[in-house]
Amino acid sequence: MSEAGPGLFDAVLARGGAREATTDEAWLQAMLDAEAALARACASVGLARDSDAARVGECCRASYFDITALGEAAASGGNPVLPLVAALRERVGPPASDLVHRGATSQDILDTAAMVVARRALDAIAADLIAAERHAAGLARAYRDTPMAGRTLMQQAVPTTFGLVAAQWLAGLSAAAGELRRVRDERLAAQLGGAAGTLASYGPDGVKVLERFATEMGLVVPAAPWHSERSRIGELAGALGTAAGVVGSVALDVVVLAQTEVGELSESGDAGRGGSSAMPHKQNPVAAIAARAAAIQAPGLVATLLAAIPQELQRAAGAWHAEWRSLSELLRVTGSGAAWLADCLGRLRVDTERMRANLEMTNGLIHADRVVAALAPALGRQAADALVTELSGAPSFADALRHDRRVTDVLDPGALASLLDPAAAIGAAPALVDRILATTVAANAQAT
Amino acid sequence: MSEAGPGLFDAVLARGGAREATTDEAWLQAMLDAEAALARACASVGLARDSDAARVGECCRASYFDITALGEAAASGGNPVLPLVAALRERVGPPASDLVHRGATSQDILDTAAMVVARRALDAIAADLIAAERHAAGLARAYRDTPMAGRTLMQQAVPTTFGLVAAQWLAGLSAAAGELRRVRDERLAAQLGGAAGTLASYGPDGVKVLERFATEMGLVVPAAPWHSERSRIGELAGALGTAAGVVGSVALDVVVLAQTEVGELSESGDAGRGGSSAMPHKQNPVAAIAARAAAIQAPGLVATLLAAIPQELQRAAGAWHAEWRSLSELLRVTGSGAAWLADCLGRLRVDTERMRANLEMTNGLIHADRVVAALAPALGRQAADALVTELSGAPSFADALRHDRRVTDVLDPGALASLLDPAAAIGAAPALVDRILATTVAANAQAT
Amino acid sequence: MSEAGPGLFDAVLARGGAREATTDEAWLQAMLDAEAALARACASVGLARDSDAARVGECCRASYFDITALGEAAASGGNPVLPLVAALRERVGPPASDLVHRGATSQDILDTAAMVVARRALDAIAADLIAAERHAAGLARAYRDTPMAGRTLMQQAVPTTFGLVAAQWLAGLSAAAGELRRVRDERLAAQLGGAAGTLASYGPDGVKVLERFATEMGLVVPAAPWHSERSRIGELAGALGTAAGVVGSVALDVVVLAQTEVGELSESGDAGRGGSSAMPHKQNPVAAIAARAAAIQAPGLVATLLAAIPQELQRAAGAWHAEWRSLSELLRVTGSGAAWLADCLGRLRVDTERMRANLEMTNGLIHADRVVAALAPALGRQAADALVTELSGAPSFADALRHDRRVTDVLDPGALASLLDPAAAIGAAPALVDRILATTVAANAQAT
Amino acid sequence: MSEAGPGLFDAVLARGGAREATTDEAWLQAMLDAEAALARACASVGLARDSDAARVGECCRASYFDITALGEAAASGGNPVLPLVAALRERVGPPASDLVHRGATSQDILDTAAMVVARRALDAIAADLIAAERHAAGLARAYRDTPMAGRTLMQQAVPTTFGLVAAQWLAGLSAAAGELRRVRDERLAAQLGGAAGTLASYGPDGVKVLERFATEMGLVVPAAPWHSERSRIGELAGALGTAAGVVGSVALDVVVLAQTEVGELSESGDAGRGGSSAMPHKQNPVAAIAARAAAIQAPGLVATLLAAIPQELQRAAGAWHAEWRSLSELLRVTGSGAAWLADCLGRLRVDTERMRANLEMTNGLIHADRVVAALAPALGRQAADALVTELSGAPSFADALRHDRRVTDVLDPGALASLLDPAAAIGAAPALVDRILATTVAANAQAT
Repeated sequence: MSEAGPGLFDAVLARGGAREATTDEAWLQAMLDAEAALARACASVGLARDSDAARVGECCRASYFDITALGEAAASGGNPVLPLVAALRERVGPPASDLVHRGATSQDILDTAAMVVARRALDAIAADLIAAERHAAGLARAYRDTPMAGRTLMQQAVPTTFGLVAAQWLAGLSAAAGELRRVRDERLAAQLGGAAGTLASYGPDGVKVLERFATEMGLVVPAAPWHSERSRIGELAGALGTAAGVVGSVALDVVVLAQTEVGELSESGDAGRGGSSAMPHKQNPVAAIAARAAAIQAPGLVATLLAAIPQELQRAAGAWHAEWRSLSELLRVTGSGAAWLADCLGRLRVDTERMRANLEMTNGLIHADRVVAALAPALGRQAADALVTELSGAPSFADALRHDRRVTDVLDPGALASLLDPAAAIGAAPALVDRILATTVAANAQAT
Repeated sequence: MSEAGPGLFDAVLARGGAREATTDEAWLQAMLDAEAALARACASVGLARDSDAARVGECCRASYFDITALGEAAASGGNPVLPLVAALRERVGPPASDLVHRGATSQDILDTAAMVVARRALDAIAADLIAAERHAAGLARAYRDTPMAGRTLMQQAVPTTFGLVAAQWLAGLSAAAGELRRVRDERLAAQLGGAAGTLASYGPDGVKVLERFATEMGLVVPAAPWHSERSRIGELAGALGTAAGVVGSVALDVVVLAQTEVGELSESGDAGRGGSSAMPHKQNPVAAIAARAAAIQAPGLVATLLAAIPQELQRAAGAWHAEWRSLSELLRVTGSGAAWLADCLGRLRVDTERMRANLEMTNGLIHADRVVAALAPALGRQAADALVTELSGAPSFADALRHDRRVTDVLDPGALASLLDPAAAIGAAPALVDRILATTVAANAQAT
Repeated sequence: MSEAGPGLFDAVLARGGAREATTDEAWLQAMLDAEAALARACASVGLARDSDAARVGECCRASYFDITALGEAAASGGNPVLPLVAALRERVGPPASDLVHRGATSQDILDTAAMVVARRALDAIAADLIAAERHAAGLARAYRDTPMAGRTLMQQAVPTTFGLVAAQWLAGLSAAAGELRRVRDERLAAQLGGAAGTLASYGPDGVKVLERFATEMGLVVPAAPWHSERSRIGELAGALGTAAGVVGSVALDVVVLAQTEVGELSESGDAGRGGSSAMPHKQNPVAAIAARAAAIQAPGLVATLLAAIPQELQRAAGAWHAEWRSLSELLRVTGSGAAWLADCLGRLRVDTERMRANLEMTNGLIHADRVVAALAPALGRQAADALVTELSGAPSFADALRHDRRVTDVLDPGALASLLDPAAAIGAAPALVDRILATTVAANAQAT
Repeated sequence: MSEAGPGLFDAVLARGGAREATTDEAWLQAMLDAEAALARACASVGLARDSDAARVGECCRASYFDITALGEAAASGGNPVLPLVAALRERVGPPASDLVHRGATSQDILDTAAMVVARRALDAIAADLIAAERHAAGLARAYRDTPMAGRTLMQQAVPTTFGLVAAQWLAGLSAAAGELRRVRDERLAAQLGGAAGTLASYGPDGVKVLERFATEMGLVVPAAPWHSERSRIGELAGALGTAAGVVGSVALDVVVLAQTEVGELSESGDAGRGGSSAMPHKQNPVAAIAARAAAIQAPGLVATLLAAIPQELQRAAGAWHAEWRSLSELLRVTGSGAAWLADCLGRLRVDTERMRANLEMTNGLIHADRVVAALAPALGRQAADALVTELSGAPSFADALRHDRRVTDVLDPGALASLLDPAAAIGAAPALVDRILATTVAANAQAT
């Protein structure tokens, strides 16, 4: 046995189902699933007896095998399939033991297992992304028209609505989730080719065995084995990296808006969550922070997997081996980010009063562009610009506007009040919220 | 003026149309195209006069502007759109100058330009990938049944055919090209949102302006502006990274098979190409080497773009700016790889005699697995294994087989000859070639 | 001619001397410097006439050659040295033309040029880092005792001083600059080995030619040629990546502290710098933003160079070529970050009133940990914790403390005032400032 | 308990002591070591009783704590130190429990633990690198003068010696090991600063506590806490990435030279090592392959750590957390590469006959450059070139030379034989071997 439970950092760095889907036990079971499916596939085309396939199948349980011992025995051949096949043959016993691993090469089993591990992890990630999307959609609807300061380059610019911010989160999450679904459904293929990828050991039935094997595994049937054609891994890595990036982007927004000085968002805590007895004013957005941490780890792992795409000839001397752990880690961190983000968005508290107060902290300057636009028809663009720039130096821009004749000659108090009203400055934000909701709901409906 | 032609390293490191599509001139023209389209979009919804839009449009030519001067002026505001708008307004003159950049923010223009640059580069890359695919398909057909040594972990394993090797190249290139097409068609969207992404300056017509603008640009209409929702960039990066990886994988095969000691492939040269007067025996596969060099640079650039996906609030303070050059470079290197690979495969010489000779260099040992399989029914698997292992120590395994009674008792000369015949050992290779050709031809037909 | 000046994005993305040090012209001149030095080295050991070496030397000026033409001719051999040598030989003419490139291989010239380019760029980077250090040191001294809110996980925690923040910037910059100096002085070595790195063409004088050549170039004399031993490139990349990271870290602090809602720092602008006429309240910290953008691009480029360290046998088929542009880019972005940061810190405005106001925005909660510590001796740790937690819910924690008997029984008004005084809460910050100043001044003195 | 032994992939992907040094148990023990040292440091400056420090110390054993439970409890606060401190306080009991974690923040303990983990892993890596260096040195000495084909761009170029190849391995390994030593000795510093890095809780003794703490831990005393000044991590990452790259470069040479068609190197196997009963001709260089696999994973991890250097303000919201696992993984893969490489070089078999045979496979063409050089004085460079090019088309270049009057008029049989003798063509290779041995022996002596 090798792993008895989540480790010291896993609750923070490997939250969610992707961790479980990528443990050594999960890999081992996936390899055994592949061995069992191979036996059944051989039997189904008449290359073996059904009873032998059944015997192999009943021995393919991870709990029958000692992971540490298999791992140690893996060193001499360079991969854990070799000792696993030996151990499985011993457990199966004659005559069915001859059927074990029939015509396959280690990479057939490991690649197929990797695809199974990826699929299970992607399912877990999808569930968390959907939860996060649902929360984001709820926020987008609830705060569709709620003004907040739009901030560009971390400076207040002009108003937007919190609903649009949340809808943008939804848009990103939905796009990333859709791409993960596409990769899962179209690109996770079974691997079977034998020693050099020609299916030579199966005689004339090679292609048929491959097809049955893939069907047994519930994986895509590839046109051919893909031992050193790794575009599948590349696409999977790219989709995971994008998803992790989107997760990190949403989390970054939360962290920034939760700053003490901004205070527009916070994560509502269970007892003790994110808090500190010595610093009771702190309410750390732990979930968002952990989601960011996950996201930061993804691009490097993607780079590793992309750098490993060039695999020479019929099986690569190193680049293939470099995929195993990197892929597991990438699935883990993306999954952790998605799980933490779902948690974060599910407990998000929105402080609309702080949003309003922050909108007012520039005393109307956040509306300067609209004032310029309103003055320009009467004064000319250049003069309007100059006047606004002049008044922007006053202690309160709003007051200065209200008391400057050059302004009041053009704009009556009602017009001026409207220009200084954030709710009147949100442009198409609500309409954009609706568009995003419509698009993503459609995407999700299609996905189900 | 800033760039007068390809640079010192460009012929090697930036071959193909993607270089031209990503020059400063190309970026500038794309920005101007966006400004012109914006003016037309405003006019089309009644926010401006058609004549003003036309006036703006006729001024939007890159040759009218001084790239170095624009570049230098970009420093104070942090991007080149600010000085470009000033220069364009000056050239357009009143009254149409008021229409220039109406309601837009710098990022609207730069992001839209990035999408245009990407599309033009992707078109160039696609053309080179298609050329490479065509060559690979030709090789796959021509050498469908030609035996060569299959090599795993860089050791001879069992036979395959060169046609299957080339078909695998085709499979990877086709998958990568298909993914690039998908991203190009579905994900390259126009950007328009104004200061904080709310389209506020257009009044009630905001969404309509966005739609017209996108249509004018020939880009996807997004559900909403995507200033800090960068999943599009992530997917594009992932697809380019995968394509570069596949290109590098094919190139690696060529380099390895062109080694002096292997000699199965070479690049036929123009006079001087890849040769050396001092070392007339050298025939460097320059095109494959340059394709590899391109591919090696991609994963790091992808990592940069993925790491820049987290962009805070309404416009990121740095992560956005980090995309500009990284994206250009990634398009360049992927394009260079594709162009070099097309060149490489187009001039590939296949030495079937060396393939045959290499198959024979182990004196039959490359067929050992089939000999075991043939002996096993009579001798039992274990004894067959042991016998083959014993005979594999002989100077010539083939001779040893022919003269060992334990073998000849089981296998007659004809059977033995067949076991030692590479052409009889290629398994499903030809069928797999056909499957790959069928799949990719279908994919390409669909793409056209 | 190929490049006539800085490009469209260079003022933002490639500020500072590293850009100029890495242009095609700079590379070409560095190659020519290497050719000239090689000729002199040959002459100095008696393998050629001094007059021939002088003739070669006087022809080695970049302006004599056409970069675009050289670049185009580079394609057939895979690197620009081959056509450069041909062009140089032609210009030199007989008999000295025979001396050109004597005994060298293309990689000798390109690697040596890369080292020269790197050294010149490192010198430019060092100058900017020193300027940034000087500004940081000035800030550290000036604000050594000025309290500001310490923020952990972007939440106010306990006080620190701005001087310590600036001293930490200094510490990072000094460490990074020191490491760059070390690499420059110890690891930038000349390259000379001939076709397979054995110096075979120089007869018994090979090592002597290598030594003279390195001395002529002002580069480290290596123990041996290092055509495929790339630890030097790896160390250089690591040091640049660390420097870029430190630059990005300082810039990130500035961006965060310059937020509208925090307002403690800003970049004082020249007219128009960072401003916006339409949004006069915005004062974008353009320099810090550009520094961040530079830093974000470094890790991916470092990964590329590290991934290219494995170079097979006597000259790598691709990995070597992948270094050229990646190294140039890494030098450029690190240099750009350093230059922007020096600019940023040189114009930094510190708003101590906002620092004070921000310290007060939690109404004393930022001092809760010290209140607990002060109450604990009398009440016990647990009771003190509980009391503080209880009072932390009040509208003003400070007022609640002043009016709660359980507190006032233990702490007299003076003690309480001191506990709520940020200046009394800065711990060893001033002493740490002094320690950092002492260490870095010593490091810099040693460097000069 | 969480991990009971090495996992399924560890023997292949995480060989060597670095794996053990980076387990959860090792991290936990390192955190506990930090807590114990902190207690002693407090006592040593009079802030606590020695007996309390001793009580804390005796409770600081990893085996007393449940890793899975700690890990799970870590979620609410975002790091495992919080629950560890609670559990440790409970075990210690009053009154010494008050001393536990005195004045520290979680990052103090985790960063110090990371440095301890790194140091222990670096020690393991150093041991394996030294073993690899020793083997490389032995090969360099033994084959100092043994000719082999030098290969550039994977084509035979001119001769070198295997000794020089091995010496180049040694040069790279020695440089990388030296840099790791430097980082270990100069940059692995203790971390102690308290909540915002001001050491405020220790009153006037803050700096003294920091110094004592560092000394207790056997780590460098930093000028100041470095919570968000991460240049140390960057340098460590760069050094590890370079080391992994060098390891990968040596392994790549072995893999290439072990190809069936080259056959100059092989890994001598224990029974079953690298072999295959079905393919008895295969002798996979498993150790070199596993070393390569390790190396391929490093650059991406380095990029992650460099990208995490920018850490905002007094503690980063995510970037810090992203370091934990990435650093562990980078130590593991670098360690695994070093361990596998030591194993590989220790069992390397050199086939000098194949080296000789490969030198002869071009029938003398590998010496063409020397023939040109020998003919040039008599015929002129151009004519010599032309003649050699002409004769290089003959079935045997050597024979053609021997029978061509234009050649034999210039070169007598002895001269010709010498020109075709690889041993006469190795140039300064032996001298370069000596230089590398001398340099690296000196470096290692200094290190001890």
